[in-house]
Amino acid sequence: MNLLSIPSFDQIAAQKACKRQDVLTKPLGSLGLLEKLSVSLAGMTGSEQPQFKQKGVIVMAADHGVALSGVSAYPREVTAQMVLNFVKGGAAINVLSRQAGAKVTVVDIGVAYDFKGIEGICHRKLAWGSQNMLELPAMTREQAEEGIQVGIDVVIEEIHKGMDIVSTGEMGIGNTTPSSAITAILTSSPVKDVTWRGTGIDDKRLKFKIEAIERAICLHEPNPQDPIDVLAKVGGLDIAGLTGVILGAASRRVPVVVDGFISGAAALVAAHLEPAIKPFLIASHQSAERGHSVIWDHLDLRPILNLDLRLGEGSGAVLAFHIIEAATRILNEMSTFEQAGVSNK
Amino acid sequence: MNLLSIPSFDQIAAQKACKRQDVLTKPLGSLGLLEKLSVSLAGMTGSEQPQFKQKGVIVMAADHGVALSGVSAYPREVTAQMVLNFVKGGAAINVLSRQAGAKVTVVDIGVAYDFKGIEGICHRKLAWGSQNMLELPAMTREQAEEGIQVGIDVVIEEIHKGMDIVSTGEMGIGNTTPSSAITAILTSSPVKDVTWRGTGIDDKRLKFKIEAIERAICLHEPNPQDPIDVLAKVGGLDIAGLTGVILGAASRRVPVVVDGFISGAAALVAAHLEPAIKPFLIASHQSAERGHSVIWDHLDLRPILNLDLRLGEGSGAVLAFHIIEAATRILNEMSTFEQAGVSNK
Repeated sequence: MNLLSIPSFDQIAAQKACKRQDVLTKPLGSLGLLEKLSVSLAGMTGSEQPQFKQKGVIVMAADHGVALSGVSAYPREVTAQMVLNFVKGGAAINVLSRQAGAKVTVVDIGVAYDFKGIEGICHRKLAWGSQNMLELPAMTREQAEEGIQVGIDVVIEEIHKGMDIVSTGEMGIGNTTPSSAITAILTSSPVKDVTWRGTGIDDKRLKFKIEAIERAICLHEPNPQDPIDVLAKVGGLDIAGLTGVILGAASRRVPVVVDGFISGAAALVAAHLEPAIKPFLIASHQSAERGHSVIWDHLDLRPILNLDLRLGEGSGAVLAFHIIEAATRILNEMSTFEQAGVSNK
Repeated sequence: MNLLSIPSFDQIAAQKACKRQDVLTKPLGSLGLLEKLSVSLAGMTGSEQPQFKQKGVIVMAADHGVALSGVSAYPREVTAQMVLNFVKGGAAINVLSRQAGAKVTVVDIGVAYDFKGIEGICHRKLAWGSQNMLELPAMTREQAEEGIQVGIDVVIEEIHKGMDIVSTGEMGIGNTTPSSAITAILTSSPVKDVTWRGTGIDDKRLKFKIEAIERAICLHEPNPQDPIDVLAKVGGLDIAGLTGVILGAASRRVPVVVDGFISGAAALVAAHLEPAIKPFLIASHQSAERGHSVIWDHLDLRPILNLDLRLGEGSGAVLAFHIIEAATRILNEMSTFEQAGVSNK
């Protein structure tokens, strides 16, 4: 894993964007979060009038050993089946990305299925799923670091191809379980406060899921001061990959639109590894998964949307692209009071 | 004013849409509000797979006599200046409509300015602004009815031209004042609970605004059982026009995306005149104007967005078009479990 240098938020560009908002033909501040977003995006990109030409979503797919213990409502093979659905364009993330004009990059970073020869997948498999954290650490420290490096490599390659704003997405049956474990440790929260129904488990299975996470944490004793240790012991390959996507994008001043709970867990790992990435994060939505708001609070982020989504894949982040684009268009395209001959207050 | 017959919500189409959502490749209900919206849209349009080909926003512009009493932060001439800004394409509503692929129809229903000869405006002026409700009823009953008829005529004409989903928008310096008055009366709320800062007035002017509204209500004693009486005495021409837009659209099964506080006041008038229009309303956003949530609660609607907007013009409604389109695309374009060969629970 290479160390990356993270640039700082450009206060001057942000101030210039803010000044421009104040002379556009609308009451001061009347576009609320759109105005704030435009100012943040200016600071991230270092451009006082940011514009994005190529949106993208990077979907990290991996299996999780813990899924074999019955923490999910769906069988494990669904991970691979959904990856194939992504390739064929029939999943929610495909539909929403077509609408938003975003490119979907599907990465097999650790699915327990042989995708050899299948086009439309970025083949970066590090393992056939993680280990079952109820017995073993989910990954070795080396695997966790390799996973992060895969994310960095993939996002940097996409940035070279032109992507200038990125959403995080994932597919991995069972992956709310490691996400809850990471969130509990890195935000010092009780497991029960950050664990919820994932794909839709019932009360009994939720109780089992909470106990399983508590057991895994007891067993491996991940060190809260060492995010890689946490990621390795109770995380997963998809989350490692997304951590890398976030680090890599921030290193290139590319805004990162963070999707749901699993993406949020990766953002936690990234922010604990390298706090300087925080200004490059945009919270796309508030999901129905209860730990999600704990993550946003911890990162001091306000989600753009609140639509009771709990799908993942990057779906909420890609939906938020529309609002983000609106924010930049307002800044770039609206007339000033002077241009339009409109009286100011 | 012609009486309109309002069709009923198509329960069968809605049920079919709901059944389809349940077999698409995602955990049951995991797209939250998107799924609910798609089902509502099916019931509104009578199509189990609704799709919209031409979005539109109808912006009713009018002046308000009460603005001359100092209830707004901006001078009255801004109404006309902003209408000219709309025509030139430099306002927020133009920018956001270009992004959403929505047509903007600007209607002069009562601006105190002579737009004669200017193209790009729908010329339907009924008066040079309403009367100052602190002295006289804002409109005569006939004017209020004519205003509603203008809205009906304009929306029906746009529907004939192909518009199949409509947002409400408005421009009128001072128009949060009549909107607060209408909301107070039709929701039986104290004026102070539904009156806020509009374009950005300070505490002193807010206090004056609240007292002015209370005085106007005392003076004219609008009958809460008679929405036209309320609209005429303490409303305005823009609100009358939007009331007609809502009634006209609902009569043709065209979903109405209701924008901010002023649009909400028009929705209240429409729903009190004709409760059957309620299923055709979509609440686009929760604005910063405090009476807005009182309106949504009264109409039992949940807003899609919450971005602290307080601009009006239709801006929040046009932003919500993206989410609405996402809802219909999900329903139309996603693969089913069977098509994709994905295992269900």
